[in-house]
Amino acid sequence: MSNKSGYMKKVFPFLCFLIFFGFQQVAAQATNVAERLGYSKHDKLLIIHADDLGVAHSENKASIKAMEEGCVNSASIMVPCPWFPEIAAYAKEHQEMDFGLHLTVTSEWKYYKWGPSYWSHIMASFRNEQGYFYDNVADVAAKGNPDVLKTELATQVRLALNAGIDVTHLDAHMGAVMATPEFLKAYIQVGRDHSLPVLLDYGIPVMDSPEIQQMMTEKDVVVDRVLTAMPEDFADGMDQYYTKVLNELEPGLNCLLIHTAYDDEEMQAITIDHPDWGSAWRQADYDFFTSDKCAALLGANGIILVTWREIRDKITRAE
Amino acid sequence: MSNKSGYMKKVFPFLCFLIFFGFQQVAAQATNVAERLGYSKHDKLLIIHADDLGVAHSENKASIKAMEEGCVNSASIMVPCPWFPEIAAYAKEHQEMDFGLHLTVTSEWKYYKWGPSYWSHIMASFRNEQGYFYDNVADVAAKGNPDVLKTELATQVRLALNAGIDVTHLDAHMGAVMATPEFLKAYIQVGRDHSLPVLLDYGIPVMDSPEIQQMMTEKDVVVDRVLTAMPEDFADGMDQYYTKVLNELEPGLNCLLIHTAYDDEEMQAITIDHPDWGSAWRQADYDFFTSDKCAALLGANGIILVTWREIRDKITRAE
Repeated sequence: MSNKSGYMKKVFPFLCFLIFFGFQQVAAQATNVAERLGYSKHDKLLIIHADDLGVAHSENKASIKAMEEGCVNSASIMVPCPWFPEIAAYAKEHQEMDFGLHLTVTSEWKYYKWGPSYWSHIMASFRNEQGYFYDNVADVAAKGNPDVLKTELATQVRLALNAGIDVTHLDAHMGAVMATPEFLKAYIQVGRDHSLPVLLDYGIPVMDSPEIQQMMTEKDVVVDRVLTAMPEDFADGMDQYYTKVLNELEPGLNCLLIHTAYDDEEMQAITIDHPDWGSAWRQADYDFFTSDKCAALLGANGIILVTWREIRDKITRAE
Repeated sequence: MSNKSGYMKKVFPFLCFLIFFGFQQVAAQATNVAERLGYSKHDKLLIIHADDLGVAHSENKASIKAMEEGCVNSASIMVPCPWFPEIAAYAKEHQEMDFGLHLTVTSEWKYYKWGPSYWSHIMASFRNEQGYFYDNVADVAAKGNPDVLKTELATQVRLALNAGIDVTHLDAHMGAVMATPEFLKAYIQVGRDHSLPVLLDYGIPVMDSPEIQQMMTEKDVVVDRVLTAMPEDFADGMDQYYTKVLNELEPGLNCLLIHTAYDDEEMQAITIDHPDWGSAWRQADYDFFTSDKCAALLGANGIILVTWREIRDKITRAE
């Protein structure tokens, strides 16, 4: 105990300095993201971002339509999923659109599964007995090896680049790769290794751990707010929730995470026994973000849509 | 050359004996399969067998209905496919039904993919650059290692048994595991290791190779005829083809391989750019084998439906 106490006496002030310095540095860059992108700090910037592309044909088809004809202006793709080749082929042919990777280490549905992209026994810590990813974040966090995670995430990036996608950013399916400080470090590092922005915000539980704060540089973009519907919002009605989000959007860089798919046979079967983030939920997201009302609310509230490509090219890849 | 010539002089008569002996042995057991199952050799025995379960929700749903309400009396499941857990859960709850494994080492569709069940670098010879199985049999035959194949096939059997399926037989998706004598040996051996009958017939190109003939024992069941629609049959109309098959069925053990799915959005997207064995083809199979006409033709022609479970329990697992 005394040794530990002595250690803390010497180290604690230094740790405090590091944490304080880290927060200052991050706070400084975070509040200035808008200005670094060429906007005013009073502007309401928004990424309307569809998650989960590649998970199903229904998700691909609805998300493409919501991007082409609706208000969705960015999306991320799940490389290990069965329908990845379909959305990869589309993304390759539409380099002007904003596609990142929804880094995936979980396989959460009941009757429809996938596993790692990195085909090796070293991935064993991320697989259940059937060879699939675990269906929940707790198991991933408890059993997954962070070094192995980095290999898997790098493989997902390589496969996407090989498929011809101009990857604009990285984010995290179910937040699984943000579950521990070690995982979050691996996630941030894979972004740096490919000069890609990674989605970060202060809602991530381990975001304020000292080792993460020490990693942060001016090239890391921490969005001011991540917004996403929760089960209670779905219960109250998605139109009501999204209308409120757009009417009350605050200045700064906001990222609204949605899931666009059709409430069709395929999606109903995939999301069976799981109404939260299920097929009706995804149809409601699709309906709102392809509606005239959504476009009108964006205009009425002076909301400026920004893409991850802008962030990547103006900040992450700035000289 | 002289050495080789001398070798051939000594060995050739012996080889001829082995081939002759092998053919005799196989011919003897093949013609007696009906009697060994307890039928007359004049009986027209038929397995109406749906392939490809697990490939899609559409395939699972249609095939279950065609088995529950139609004339389909046996089916095989693709373990490496995304929808395997759905059909595995059904099979586990329906132990009375006849489910085998459609051993799979190809992933043939354009935008929808899967890869090996055995998660190891030793599977590299069966994977393309994206980590999926090759989409054609020629690549599998040219690049795949037969010893590694055996490990993959055994893994598929283990995963199916672990999922609670009472596996009744093994067969081969696209015939890929029958492509070379070494592959065919591995396939037969995996069946023996689990006391499971494997689908064999003399239509398999390498079936009459000496090393295969030498393997054959009285426990191996070579069906008298494998019947399956080809693109020209689909072009002429499936109703016409299947009507002819049933009206002209010969005595002995016949296996009719079909593919039942719905011509729906999911199946259309999976089979895109591939009308042969596509969604309309599978809907036509479903339509015929759930029709009153099919049931009437079976009755009118005195056709007896037999299952792989009968074969497994009366021949493969006979004391």
